[in-house]
Amino acid sequence: MEPIITPIQVRYQETDQMGVVYHANYLVWFEIGRTALIEHLGLSYAEMEQAGVVSPVTHVEIDYLKPIRYGQPAYVKTWLEHYDGLRTSYRYQVIDQEEQVAVSGRTDHVVVDRERFKPLSIRRKFPEWHQRYQQLLKGE
Amino acid sequence: MEPIITPIQVRYQETDQMGVVYHANYLVWFEIGRTALIEHLGLSYAEMEQAGVVSPVTHVEIDYLKPIRYGQPAYVKTWLEHYDGLRTSYRYQVIDQEEQVAVSGRTDHVVVDRERFKPLSIRRKFPEWHQRYQQLLKGE
Amino acid sequence: MEPIITPIQVRYQETDQMGVVYHANYLVWFEIGRTALIEHLGLSYAEMEQAGVVSPVTHVEIDYLKPIRYGQPAYVKTWLEHYDGLRTSYRYQVIDQEEQVAVSGRTDHVVVDRERFKPLSIRRKFPEWHQRYQQLLKGE
Amino acid sequence: MEPIITPIQVRYQETDQMGVVYHANYLVWFEIGRTALIEHLGLSYAEMEQAGVVSPVTHVEIDYLKPIRYGQPAYVKTWLEHYDGLRTSYRYQVIDQEEQVAVSGRTDHVVVDRERFKPLSIRRKFPEWHQRYQQLLKGE
Repeated sequence: MEPIITPIQVRYQETDQMGVVYHANYLVWFEIGRTALIEHLGLSYAEMEQAGVVSPVTHVEIDYLKPIRYGQPAYVKTWLEHYDGLRTSYRYQVIDQEEQVAVSGRTDHVVVDRERFKPLSIRRKFPEWHQRYQQLLKGE
Repeated sequence: MEPIITPIQVRYQETDQMGVVYHANYLVWFEIGRTALIEHLGLSYAEMEQAGVVSPVTHVEIDYLKPIRYGQPAYVKTWLEHYDGLRTSYRYQVIDQEEQVAVSGRTDHVVVDRERFKPLSIRRKFPEWHQRYQQLLKGE
Repeated sequence: MEPIITPIQVRYQETDQMGVVYHANYLVWFEIGRTALIEHLGLSYAEMEQAGVVSPVTHVEIDYLKPIRYGQPAYVKTWLEHYDGLRTSYRYQVIDQEEQVAVSGRTDHVVVDRERFKPLSIRRKFPEWHQRYQQLLKGE
Repeated sequence: MEPIITPIQVRYQETDQMGVVYHANYLVWFEIGRTALIEHLGLSYAEMEQAGVVSPVTHVEIDYLKPIRYGQPAYVKTWLEHYDGLRTSYRYQVIDQEEQVAVSGRTDHVVVDRERFKPLSIRRKFPEWHQRYQQLLKGE
């Protein structure tokens, strides 16, 4: 698949006194990229939650190569790395103004019921999501 | 009433590239002070929410007199300013290492049902809260 | 002046367990609106900081009328309320999907030197900013 | 070495609409644990920064096993995993009210000059830090 491209305007609030974007905030940027990918597939995470289901993160990995600063343009590239009906892995790259990879990362997710956080099968509970994610993996 | 004193250790994440605590974060510190005041009264906001009720902020005012920096001790003074069975107003002062007021503020709150945000009477819905807040206002 | 309109896509990270945008985050949205207004004038806050000058907030007021939820479109209207060569006041309205005012607020700012937070005259230190802000107030 | 234990009181602001602590916030809790470890060694990160040096994160990994909720006690266990004079790795576990590991993670750090983010030798630039970290690794 082609990565989804999402432009980011650095918020002053996202900086810290090192003068760069605080490292935890890239997880928020990853979320913006992930949301854009889901919308690109014609799906809605807000609707999934209205069905009493949430999709928590189970694992993250991030490599920080270069700092991003306030006032500099940046964008996130997001793509699907793995999907097996239960677990979903996304990959991300934050690209800086020199078109270099500043940050790269990965997040893994499951879907669970909101009340007890018991894992659910995406395949059975959300067949439309299942179909779109399988197509995406195959590059359709 | 005696103000409730809550020590704060500045988190690096709370700073911005100005080298000081980002202005929105004092609202989080006010929340820490408010939580401490509620616990001091022997009440639990978590239990209120379990009853399907939440207490959103309806108004805030903040004056910023001096910046607070990472590595400097600070504390929040919190007290009840107003309570009438429907609305509650708290006052706050953030005190810096020189015992000077760095930030002062006020937040107003109502209680509403979680689903539709319809206002509720604290007096009727939570008589124990009502009693404690009235005592607090009278300085008992 | 015509208010500056800035669309906002609610971030999941901006919600709290009340199921709505956490109240402190509207200050971040105000900042996004303020940044857009400054850019609209052809000015750059990042460049001001490179000159060793920062512009801290001295006062905020916010009224919360309706909650904003994840998945709902919103935008910020930002305009200049007051400017006198030393102090600048901005006004904001967050507009929800029903075109109603969900949140309204105001922030006051000064400019100071980064090291000691000593107030500076915008008029003298940044004559271009001074001119543009005066024009904006007069509706030019 | 014995892990450093740091109690955490969940802030309402740290929750999201899933009703649990938002996943990025554990990086902030890790930072609280790391700061406590550094203070335990008699060192001061604030002083390091005053010398024009900062210590950015180069890599993070986090595993999320159980959610943490508002109103529940938690604490962070922090220990040093690796130190070689240039790179430092810390390990963390967030322990929930049932004494179970809710979140575990690791962060890697270097030290760089604040202006250009060029790597520096901790051994040469901060010999006291070097000595204390070496002793810590050896369990002294």
